Amino acid sequence: MSPDQQKGKPDWHHNHNGEELFVEPQPDHLVASEAGSTASDLGVVGEATHAAKRALLGRPLSNAEEGEQRLSRKLALPIFSSDAISSSAYASEEILLVLAGAGASFLIYGPIVALGIGLLLGLIAISYRQVCFGFPNGGGAYAVAKSTFGTWPALIAASSLIVDYILTAAVSTAAGIAAITSAIPSLAGVRLELALGAMGLLVLANLRGLRESGRIFALPTYLFVAGAFGVIGVGLIKIITGDPAVTWSQGVVIQAHETATILLPILLLKAFAHGSVALTGTEAISNGVASFKKPEAKNAASTLVVMAVLLGTLFLGISLVAFAYGKVPQEIGGETLLSQVARASFGSGPLYALFQVATTGILLLAANTGFNGGPQLARILAVDGYLPRQVGQRSDRLAYGAGIIIIALAAALLLIGTDAVVTALVPAYAIGVFVGFTISQAGMVLHWRRLRNAGWAGRALLNGVGAFVTAVVLVVITAAKFTDGGYLVFILIPLLTIFMKLVRNRYNLHERELSIKPGVVFDAPHRPRRILAPFGEINRSTVRAITLGRILEAENGELTAIRVVFSDDEEREVRTRFETLFPGVRLVTVDSPFRAIVEPICHYLDEIEDEDADLPPDQRRINVVMIPEYAGRHWWDRILHNGNGKRLRETLLGRRNTVILDIPYRRDLE
Amino acid sequence: MSPDQQKGKPDWHHNHNGEELFVEPQPDHLVASEAGSTASDLGVVGEATHAAKRALLGRPLSNAEEGEQRLSRKLALPIFSSDAISSSAYASEEILLVLAGAGASFLIYGPIVALGIGLLLGLIAISYRQVCFGFPNGGGAYAVAKSTFGTWPALIAASSLIVDYILTAAVSTAAGIAAITSAIPSLAGVRLELALGAMGLLVLANLRGLRESGRIFALPTYLFVAGAFGVIGVGLIKIITGDPAVTWSQGVVIQAHETATILLPILLLKAFAHGSVALTGTEAISNGVASFKKPEAKNAASTLVVMAVLLGTLFLGISLVAFAYGKVPQEIGGETLLSQVARASFGSGPLYALFQVATTGILLLAANTGFNGGPQLARILAVDGYLPRQVGQRSDRLAYGAGIIIIALAAALLLIGTDAVVTALVPAYAIGVFVGFTISQAGMVLHWRRLRNAGWAGRALLNGVGAFVTAVVLVVITAAKFTDGGYLVFILIPLLTIFMKLVRNRYNLHERELSIKPGVVFDAPHRPRRILAPFGEINRSTVRAITLGRILEAENGELTAIRVVFSDDEEREVRTRFETLFPGVRLVTVDSPFRAIVEPICHYLDEIEDEDADLPPDQRRINVVMIPEYAGRHWWDRILHNGNGKRLRETLLGRRNTVILDIPYRRDLE
Repeated sequence: MSPDQQKGKPDWHHNHNGEELFVEPQPDHLVASEAGSTASDLGVVGEATHAAKRALLGRPLSNAEEGEQRLSRKLALPIFSSDAISSSAYASEEILLVLAGAGASFLIYGPIVALGIGLLLGLIAISYRQVCFGFPNGGGAYAVAKSTFGTWPALIAASSLIVDYILTAAVSTAAGIAAITSAIPSLAGVRLELALGAMGLLVLANLRGLRESGRIFALPTYLFVAGAFGVIGVGLIKIITGDPAVTWSQGVVIQAHETATILLPILLLKAFAHGSVALTGTEAISNGVASFKKPEAKNAASTLVVMAVLLGTLFLGISLVAFAYGKVPQEIGGETLLSQVARASFGSGPLYALFQVATTGILLLAANTGFNGGPQLARILAVDGYLPRQVGQRSDRLAYGAGIIIIALAAALLLIGTDAVVTALVPAYAIGVFVGFTISQAGMVLHWRRLRNAGWAGRALLNGVGAFVTAVVLVVITAAKFTDGGYLVFILIPLLTIFMKLVRNRYNLHERELSIKPGVVFDAPHRPRRILAPFGEINRSTVRAITLGRILEAENGELTAIRVVFSDDEEREVRTRFETLFPGVRLVTVDSPFRAIVEPICHYLDEIEDEDADLPPDQRRINVVMIPEYAGRHWWDRILHNGNGKRLRETLLGRRNTVILDIPYRRDLE
Repeated sequence: MSPDQQKGKPDWHHNHNGEELFVEPQPDHLVASEAGSTASDLGVVGEATHAAKRALLGRPLSNAEEGEQRLSRKLALPIFSSDAISSSAYASEEILLVLAGAGASFLIYGPIVALGIGLLLGLIAISYRQVCFGFPNGGGAYAVAKSTFGTWPALIAASSLIVDYILTAAVSTAAGIAAITSAIPSLAGVRLELALGAMGLLVLANLRGLRESGRIFALPTYLFVAGAFGVIGVGLIKIITGDPAVTWSQGVVIQAHETATILLPILLLKAFAHGSVALTGTEAISNGVASFKKPEAKNAASTLVVMAVLLGTLFLGISLVAFAYGKVPQEIGGETLLSQVARASFGSGPLYALFQVATTGILLLAANTGFNGGPQLARILAVDGYLPRQVGQRSDRLAYGAGIIIIALAAALLLIGTDAVVTALVPAYAIGVFVGFTISQAGMVLHWRRLRNAGWAGRALLNGVGAFVTAVVLVVITAAKFTDGGYLVFILIPLLTIFMKLVRNRYNLHERELSIKPGVVFDAPHRPRRILAPFGEINRSTVRAITLGRILEAENGELTAIRVVFSDDEEREVRTRFETLFPGVRLVTVDSPFRAIVEPICHYLDEIEDEDADLPPDQRRINVVMIPEYAGRHWWDRILHNGNGKRLRETLLGRRNTVILDIPYRRDLE
């Protein structure tokens, strides 16, 4: 130990190349440097893989490099609301698609349905405003449900949110690409390829540890909002000035739909259900309260209000202007409604092009919500034991790699299955969100009731109304979309919920198996033992096991090598060879005329244990069974060996008074 | 030790229930009884599974219970020739199917094609007669090719035979069921189910360790031969007496096929190729020379001649009588040609029914050849290292279970893929057999040339002609059947051949890795060591590793527990807990701000190894790294744990001066 260490002062440890690997702030407490966290001697393939990984993902990031940035309202607005606001780029179109399916004359109901959704948005925003105050550490539906209803509702909420994160990634990417193909129709044929490529870039960015807190994230959102206001503003001016582009004065009137009197409510509810995708993402701000500058809850709440007003205005404005221009959705893969409206307002010049770029930008940001929020929720679930631990581990770029890749794969499957058509994805979308809305609002009612602080009744009533309305909407949109693909959500959510509960059950069981009684102190071992080394072929792996057995017996054990043989000739041959190689080691051979291998060894163990039958249990000898294993480099090397060793291990595991040691062997041949 | 043992006399070891488990003929040399080979304490599910297995498969058989029975010619004939003789049940039909496809008037060529095949049979039989004398220990194509041409041709021959064993099982089962559905046409709809059921029974019988040497195996073969002679004899009488059932005199004459003058040779070759399935199984006797009574080679050779004469007579006779009766193959799934012919000779009474039963019987015996010969060939290949060792292991019923099940699965797939229709299976059949014929006859030429004993030149010439003719036939039948399904064989044989070579290469590599230098004696270990116990959570599995580490350090090691931590708080918490639980054990913590786990441990190992850098290599300390492992009961329990332990183990395996110990832990909760 160097003098520095003895004084407890940091002291760098170097390797032969002079790289600093560790610093040792206290004796026996090392801190690894970047070099100390990187594998050495990777070989040619390993080095190339490593270099490729670094080139793609960048150098490792230390925990200390994660800047914990508190967001101003100006920055938080674009970051948290890209998902919500961007839905105004396609929600109006989805409403009109339903209406246009019943006949052009039904389009007049478009702004009316949009108004209904706008009102619902207001109610949800007010409800979630309260979540900001009630759960200032971040009140996702999972957190709220966990602290109020308990496990099952929390898991259902979590499953719904995960399903919707996947759909957010898929729908927003598809819509972002639709904005591009609207401006450049010749690209419509490679829509799916573009969408998968864009998603690939998002995945890469997130694996690199993309932080959403950068100012660059604000730009597309503000640009889109400004552009959309421009589109609407020009539209309104044209309406007022009676511009010829405005066609509604030219004969579109509400006609008497005699055949539709009964079906009209159903049609409107269906349009409402499809338009409700506008509401996805509304809950994002309440999840991220902790990221706001102080006072967090107040800042978050007012940002939420601004977001809701912006979203509502844009959504209603676009719906209205689209109707005024007489624009209708085109066939699948054609120009988007928003693009048509923007052309009508801006012409097809640079202003229009810029707006399309901004639209794509905000939609890809919204898609990124899936890759950002989804894995974070998965990490929380992994920490709580509802998902495998690997999901909660951060990569060397501080990203939750496993979660990102799982969500990307699921979203890519959806894109491939629907050929990246937004309308085909919408039926499954929003259902999960409304499950989350309902559970979290209902949970808030319980939360306020439990708190019973001043004015709790009013707050509980408000969240109660929110819960009731979102529950009704959930039923409505489920009924409207179920057969179109919504049923998928009702298969996925229960499966995911049950899966998470099962994972947790397994972890609970394992914890019980592995738990240590409190207050125990483990002394140096004193139990006498018996060392057993069953083996098959006599090779280097066997030699290693016997050698270790001799070390273990040195103090107070007894080493017995055991070999199952199938004939007297084999017995003689094995014994001669063994006794030459390992003089002084006892060999017991078991001839097995019924060709069983594992069972005679177990019976032999039973038998020798009987020697201790008269001793009190804590003085009986421990059996240490050493199982040599050939650890090939590849799975195909391994299936060619070790079958009997594995079966023996499986049979003996959990046996009383028995410790199993696997002794893997591999030699790296030059 | 009992006095008996000291005198070296047998002495039974009993368990608590008084069951005799072992006898000990010499000290430390036990022999397990049946009870000693059976697992105890299986639990409820285990007991039920065990009981079900015993009920299905019977009690275990000891090696001593394998009766080695030498066969008389009378018994050997039916046992070895069911495969060959039974092909007369469908081969004529396959010829006529091809001819009838070109027009009814072409049927006249049926007996002519059959005659060609009969001549070929004669040549092959004479060639194989010589194999009986040349390889009296059993001269399968693999054995002949291995001892003459070497590895690759031997593996190609083996692959061809395995493919044909599978096809034998499938074709013969399908043909056996066709004999039943011919008699009872209402069963035609469940043809596939019947075929799979029959195959299931064969598999079960073989897993029970069915021996083909029983007298019962002779019955269907002799019954079929007698019946077929009856069918032919009655037919000949009817021809002579000008019975009205004989229709050939009523106008079928050789017409001038003007359009067919060019195509006729191709048609005949195709008919020949399809009829050549009659030749499969001819080689069986030469494989089994060792099972004959003395003088083995002579008895086998004369049995081979009898078999060839029987097969040739039956095949030609059935072809001729079928033509005389004017019977043509029916559409797929209809009555078989042989059944039609038998009805024409016997009527539809009890004689006919008995003949159909005998036909099904001999065909299922032929199918059984696949389940018997295939696994035995696979065992020889496993012993030679060309297939995984498991394939060569015998079950407790002395059966090669793995081989039986693999062949059954492949044959069942073929039956399902073709709906158990013989004609659909035939194109792939016989190609593999002719590959084996050609390789083995060519190998025999080399064999005689090498021996150069009296008359070798004549024998070599005969086998040379055999090799040449079978090679030509191989090309002909390949060309004729390639596009109909024969190409499958040309995909399967190379794949199987390469697979077997790769398996052997891996075993060779592993043997080099594991080999011990000759003449070495391993003394009791003296190398000083350092014991390292990296761990994650502190639980029972960690306790077991630390405890073992303390045992190992007792003599001359030094135990260091290693824990990677991610923050100072964690460091303090882990250290406090560890030092309370394990007083006196050194704990090194490695803070890893880049979240790497395996790499810092490796660098730490490098670093401490440097302490020994000045010592000569054989005095440097050995690192014993103990890796605790939670061994859950199921794979889903295991994927939830041990990720880091596995990665550490993989990284350290093969490292110089380092021994890895896996310490699996499982507690059986009550």
